[in-house]
Amino acid sequence: MNSHVHSYAFGIATLNRKGEIIEVYYPRPEADITGSEAKLLIDLLKSAGALEEGYLRLRNEPNHEEELIHEIKPLLNDQTFTKEKDQILDILESENPILTLQIKDEAPKNIPQAFLKLHLLSHRLVMPNSINLDGLFGVLRNLAWTNKGAIDIEDLPRKQLEARRQGEVLEINSVDKFPKMANYVVPSGVRIADTSRIRLGAHIGKGTTVMHEGFINFNAGTEGTAMIEGRISAGVIIGTNSDLGGSSSTMGTLSGGGTELVSVGKNCLIGANAGIGFPLADGCIVEAGLYVTSGTKINLLDESGTLIRKVKAKEISGLKNYLFRRNSLSGAVECTPIKNAATLNEELHTHN
Amino acid sequence: MNSHVHSYAFGIATLNRKGEIIEVYYPRPEADITGSEAKLLIDLLKSAGALEEGYLRLRNEPNHEEELIHEIKPLLNDQTFTKEKDQILDILESENPILTLQIKDEAPKNIPQAFLKLHLLSHRLVMPNSINLDGLFGVLRNLAWTNKGAIDIEDLPRKQLEARRQGEVLEINSVDKFPKMANYVVPSGVRIADTSRIRLGAHIGKGTTVMHEGFINFNAGTEGTAMIEGRISAGVIIGTNSDLGGSSSTMGTLSGGGTELVSVGKNCLIGANAGIGFPLADGCIVEAGLYVTSGTKINLLDESGTLIRKVKAKEISGLKNYLFRRNSLSGAVECTPIKNAATLNEELHTHN
Amino acid sequence: MNSHVHSYAFGIATLNRKGEIIEVYYPRPEADITGSEAKLLIDLLKSAGALEEGYLRLRNEPNHEEELIHEIKPLLNDQTFTKEKDQILDILESENPILTLQIKDEAPKNIPQAFLKLHLLSHRLVMPNSINLDGLFGVLRNLAWTNKGAIDIEDLPRKQLEARRQGEVLEINSVDKFPKMANYVVPSGVRIADTSRIRLGAHIGKGTTVMHEGFINFNAGTEGTAMIEGRISAGVIIGTNSDLGGSSSTMGTLSGGGTELVSVGKNCLIGANAGIGFPLADGCIVEAGLYVTSGTKINLLDESGTLIRKVKAKEISGLKNYLFRRNSLSGAVECTPIKNAATLNEELHTHN
Repeated sequence: MNSHVHSYAFGIATLNRKGEIIEVYYPRPEADITGSEAKLLIDLLKSAGALEEGYLRLRNEPNHEEELIHEIKPLLNDQTFTKEKDQILDILESENPILTLQIKDEAPKNIPQAFLKLHLLSHRLVMPNSINLDGLFGVLRNLAWTNKGAIDIEDLPRKQLEARRQGEVLEINSVDKFPKMANYVVPSGVRIADTSRIRLGAHIGKGTTVMHEGFINFNAGTEGTAMIEGRISAGVIIGTNSDLGGSSSTMGTLSGGGTELVSVGKNCLIGANAGIGFPLADGCIVEAGLYVTSGTKINLLDESGTLIRKVKAKEISGLKNYLFRRNSLSGAVECTPIKNAATLNEELHTHN
Repeated sequence: MNSHVHSYAFGIATLNRKGEIIEVYYPRPEADITGSEAKLLIDLLKSAGALEEGYLRLRNEPNHEEELIHEIKPLLNDQTFTKEKDQILDILESENPILTLQIKDEAPKNIPQAFLKLHLLSHRLVMPNSINLDGLFGVLRNLAWTNKGAIDIEDLPRKQLEARRQGEVLEINSVDKFPKMANYVVPSGVRIADTSRIRLGAHIGKGTTVMHEGFINFNAGTEGTAMIEGRISAGVIIGTNSDLGGSSSTMGTLSGGGTELVSVGKNCLIGANAGIGFPLADGCIVEAGLYVTSGTKINLLDESGTLIRKVKAKEISGLKNYLFRRNSLSGAVECTPIKNAATLNEELHTHN
Repeated sequence: MNSHVHSYAFGIATLNRKGEIIEVYYPRPEADITGSEAKLLIDLLKSAGALEEGYLRLRNEPNHEEELIHEIKPLLNDQTFTKEKDQILDILESENPILTLQIKDEAPKNIPQAFLKLHLLSHRLVMPNSINLDGLFGVLRNLAWTNKGAIDIEDLPRKQLEARRQGEVLEINSVDKFPKMANYVVPSGVRIADTSRIRLGAHIGKGTTVMHEGFINFNAGTEGTAMIEGRISAGVIIGTNSDLGGSSSTMGTLSGGGTELVSVGKNCLIGANAGIGFPLADGCIVEAGLYVTSGTKINLLDESGTLIRKVKAKEISGLKNYLFRRNSLSGAVECTPIKNAATLNEELHTHN
């Protein structure tokens, strides 16, 4: 039998005071697996009646205490899970071990599934916009992310007072549905100057540097080498060797009224404080301080500077190697062909 | 007798090495109270000769050690403070319990009073611009906010070396007069992606989401539901259902030369990297990347796009449902009526 | 003999699992010293054969365990190091004490030297652009800066899992070659609202306030009093009494294609969301939202508003007391003389 599993992971869950799962950390998620491991996992969840839910708490389940762990450990001594064995054993020793399994790429139904999907993105196992994240906001809980881990909002005031009474501080770093990525995984070959600006679910390509002003939402990110000092909205992907200048903006579709899904091609440069609301083709430059939305009317020029025609930005989003600028004397936005694409500073990226 | 108290709170203070109060945490401040509780508090401070100062250290005062706490506890067994009783008892067990009382809304004279006022704002007990904060900068101390709590700047180098000598890090998160709000209170129904961007004294309405790029100063904030990815300067209030795009700016009056007090009406959208230096009326949109100061000259258009007249932005700050944009071909800033106001993405806010 | 030393410091190093130095904290670096202390330090490194390397591990060196510390302590009882004696003794008691010495200002060859140079800048012992930082990116390692100190990237996954298994969180604040300055030194008379935005190697003048949106790279900073709510790129210096508005940008030369070294004179104001790509002379203002690069063509006006001539920004970078704005009706960038320079709000700075 050739079983196939979209993704799975062993993880460690955080529970709230009511014993509900509010968050899961998966040190080593796996995607797109077939064969004996896939079959074994499916059988395991099936036998526990957890296939529908898609996850299994391996300890503390009312009727299964210890049993499941005893069931799983021998399986690990087989020829399965050879690479992850040590990590899985470590996880099984934690207070709240969990096994999550997605057979098909369905919309996340619960927190373990939602967190698995976010992990897949940040572990570079899937690309942004390639998996089903429908209803994600409704599944995730709004939590306080603190120096003592994730805390249910309702439990917060009590814990804050308790800490202060003892002369300590409960440091609340974020109150959000998404934690910061770096506390879950730091993918290879990246620099992230301020980790609080990257949500779990971001996909950061190898060779990417994210400076202090850079931001990457979930289901968004870079393909490979890139310099990110601007904001990558949900759903936006930045091509290899591109540079987002300080506080540059890629218009999102979650809020603010943007409808066009933005992307940035390879070898692009969006200048500091600039922004785009349309897909930018390879080799294009948007000058510092200029915001071009999909409806911005533009004077399209040829190489000699002669007007070809007036266009809307979205009509020319396929044009490669063009410079978008505002003529500083006439005030008109212009688009003009360029010969030399922008290049990244190798010294900043070769040593990541 | 019908006593009235502007505000009061029991709190926990942090002292520096000299034994001076440098910061106070009030888990549950109260505003605008009358009746027996108010009378009781006034009598208490009066009897301790602390009415003028407005606060009372309940332990460690040279001549009152333990006495005050013994005096207060029986009062709590009365019909007073029924809701806060447990919290007050917890506070009294801390090392530096304090009681702060403002009979009238006067300028803050000392740190306990200043912190009480900042708490009132963040607990949504008072609105920005509604209380007396004169001289606040002079009263507050510049402190290091660390993983070990607030530390006097003078004590810092010694503590940093001490930590490192022991192989630890003293994490300095901020060196400022204002701490971050979330370590004091997380009001209900909000998300705050990066808590370091909101000062204590911010007023965040229920249903507000503050994204990573959002910032809210003290004495500023939102009325209700809002999406905040831009900066709310001191004194600025954002109306319900408005959206501040990524890195958008509301010009402040504390620095940078702004003199006009800015505000944003209901159902407004300020685009990414845009900004305003004048009060924006309900239902208005400022396009992404456009900064309109109060003196910006604008072509005011009618619905057909015909020029009505040239105006300065501040002259039309009362106009509702207008779009501010820069004509991308002529370079002129225009203001034109719109029919459909911006709307927020419900999914992002209903689950806060 | 009149020995001269460019800089030296006793420090505490962090080692990775292989025993390599990955980071050094110097509580009190010294620059430009001569006389008996300089001679003593040179002799010490010379005798240990470490003059070439420029640093000496005072413990844990295979053949020198304890010897060096025994050698150094008596020297401290001399008339040397009178001011730093206590700190040095504290350092010597740490697990990994180190002595680093630069006789000449050469390019940093190793991590102790590189960190010494960054400390010199942040301790205000040298100005940005005044010391040799060639090859810095190649010398520094990309590290995880955590609540447990600096951690080698390779050691990270294991440590993250270990923490979570025990119900704790390993907080990863940054993954970068540069740590944040404040964990090493908080220079006198400054406020830093969010310390994660200032790298070690920044030079922050006395009286500077850096707000939440402010950012200062290494080898960059302010001369004295300043309000910084914008971004200071590597190599950029801001003159006294200048104000960088929220999210304003100074174009850097490390990435994004900027080639002109930017600076800001005294008494300047760069408005919110504005930016410059050329050196701005004293007393100049760039209006909010306007980005002027070195090649921006500008209408240079006289006091009456009459066009003098069209110029590129870099051609008039020497002009003092000018306002840069975009005419909001014609769309043309203009430069016009101003009489009153911008002034800072004293209340915000006098109490630092």
